[in-house]
Amino acid sequence: MKFNIPLELFNKLQIPFAVFREGKVVHISQLIKNLLGISLSGEYAEVAEVFGDSAAAIEEHLQEVLKNSYAESVVVCSVHSEKIPVVFRTIAVEENGELYLLSFLEPLSNIKRKIKSFAFMGCSIPGIIHNVSNPMTVVLNKIQIMKMKGIEPDQMTSLITEIRKIQDIFDNVSLKSIKEMKNEEGAIDINIIIKVNMEFLNANSYVKHKIRKEVVLNNLPRMVRGRFLDLSQIFLAFFYIIFKSVEDKGDRFIRVETGYKDGKVHINFSSNGVSLEELVESAIEKVLLDSNTYTGCFVEKINLGWTFEGLKHLLDLYQVDLDYGTKPDGNYLSLGFIAEEMTL
Amino acid sequence: MKFNIPLELFNKLQIPFAVFREGKVVHISQLIKNLLGISLSGEYAEVAEVFGDSAAAIEEHLQEVLKNSYAESVVVCSVHSEKIPVVFRTIAVEENGELYLLSFLEPLSNIKRKIKSFAFMGCSIPGIIHNVSNPMTVVLNKIQIMKMKGIEPDQMTSLITEIRKIQDIFDNVSLKSIKEMKNEEGAIDINIIIKVNMEFLNANSYVKHKIRKEVVLNNLPRMVRGRFLDLSQIFLAFFYIIFKSVEDKGDRFIRVETGYKDGKVHINFSSNGVSLEELVESAIEKVLLDSNTYTGCFVEKINLGWTFEGLKHLLDLYQVDLDYGTKPDGNYLSLGFIAEEMTL
Repeated sequence: MKFNIPLELFNKLQIPFAVFREGKVVHISQLIKNLLGISLSGEYAEVAEVFGDSAAAIEEHLQEVLKNSYAESVVVCSVHSEKIPVVFRTIAVEENGELYLLSFLEPLSNIKRKIKSFAFMGCSIPGIIHNVSNPMTVVLNKIQIMKMKGIEPDQMTSLITEIRKIQDIFDNVSLKSIKEMKNEEGAIDINIIIKVNMEFLNANSYVKHKIRKEVVLNNLPRMVRGRFLDLSQIFLAFFYIIFKSVEDKGDRFIRVETGYKDGKVHINFSSNGVSLEELVESAIEKVLLDSNTYTGCFVEKINLGWTFEGLKHLLDLYQVDLDYGTKPDGNYLSLGFIAEEMTL
Repeated sequence: MKFNIPLELFNKLQIPFAVFREGKVVHISQLIKNLLGISLSGEYAEVAEVFGDSAAAIEEHLQEVLKNSYAESVVVCSVHSEKIPVVFRTIAVEENGELYLLSFLEPLSNIKRKIKSFAFMGCSIPGIIHNVSNPMTVVLNKIQIMKMKGIEPDQMTSLITEIRKIQDIFDNVSLKSIKEMKNEEGAIDINIIIKVNMEFLNANSYVKHKIRKEVVLNNLPRMVRGRFLDLSQIFLAFFYIIFKSVEDKGDRFIRVETGYKDGKVHINFSSNGVSLEELVESAIEKVLLDSNTYTGCFVEKINLGWTFEGLKHLLDLYQVDLDYGTKPDGNYLSLGFIAEEMTL
């Protein structure tokens, strides 16, 4: 098969893959054969020949790929008379004027185990930072004492500044884990939601280095009543929408600003990206489709651990005012949250 | 209702709860009424009166609690003609000679969103540590320069030691996230699996402070072929089993030692705890029951993000030799992994 996509790379990375063209199987890698117990050696076969009972589900999946150029589905495959759910992630690739569909396969149980392992890591963040804070405090104290003694006071001041930067990042990162562990509602400062989540967004090197970002957190006189997890996810979902709107730009610029007006706390996004209509609609319309939502963390250029399922529900629950449109130099999107009544 | 369990606390923590006694509903909190749209005001009601169509599933769940004193089930509840899956976690509590079953409820969608948010945090760990390493390097360099200049060399040496401790923790913590992101198999040093995962176990204050631990990582001449995620999960599952065996002791002691003998790489656990038979059997027998395995991260005293589903599959896949028994002063458990052939 003539094909410039480096299929050998997927073998090296041990990713099972299959290639389809015009509804037929053009290639299946050895790893798929192992995974699904397929002993077929021919190529250019019918889907049903290769995948048996699962053919109908796979054909439906391929239809979706043709429509949206990417799809992710769970297909239950028969492996030695056992039924195992396998996630198919397929992209459409054009190559010498021909349209190939390139599918990557992974058992669903594998993805679930991975998600849980990463969730375990996320839960452990406050404990790890706590364990690191002991030696950190020792370092800070010794430096402060030397500064007081007049030993290289300028150097010591600049060391203290650097250590404070590290501690700031730690505080933000811990806070998300601690707050989202709990279910209780409370009065939340939207600026904190943004500050904390930006720390995680900036952990992604694409977001950190490939996008110019301006974050302006104005003093907010009022709080928003809610759960930290919910407000984080609303913020991240819309950050993701804005991110998507600049993805294909050469120079990518995103601006986030908070504000308060007439009983509403606002998060105002803007960017030099494309029109938001389609992105917002498809995000809000996305329903909680269990089988389709496993891989959020692992496949996207930026991962948010959650992509949109239930966003509509959250927007309704918090009665969020949503407004968006285009500007001469890009787009804007504004979220308005009911500010908590002042109790004096 | 006379009841010494601080029910008010659950209300304060905004955890919906219900209390059952002798198969009847003794109390349902206002939050459950809100969650499930129940307007009933009476107490001491039949389960069917309160929970309608879901009564049979709830009664089955309560039977399981009576058998194992704890159960976790997903019950599909009807809320205003919508069906929502709700996780029931129920414990049996004796109070004045009466047996009460105390159920905590949480919508499954909530738990899933939380798990994904924590997985996102786990994925972000390497990026966060990367971002912190910049100011960290500045600090380290400045200190090394002052040391070379002869400024307070002893102080500087002790600062460098502390910073190295921090960097060690960071390296371990990053490594788990980076390695488990990938699916590829490779030759793995079992000592690294243990060192890295101990960092996460020690992030749990109970494991860190309430258990004496001795970890002896002997030099291993051979590696084990496999995936980091799989080997981590095997190690964590058996650490959990050993942990469970000492849970009720006054003085808790766990020992982990690695070794190599006759083509096998070993992890040898021992503790001053109870017999392991029941713990090991129930861990291995646990099948992948999708609905029962959502909360691993959030409910246990130590959380591993994964508890046992698929353990049998992993042990078979890696052809692990499993041996365990009792000793005069406690128990022992040994895992033997096939060592990779030496290629010279």
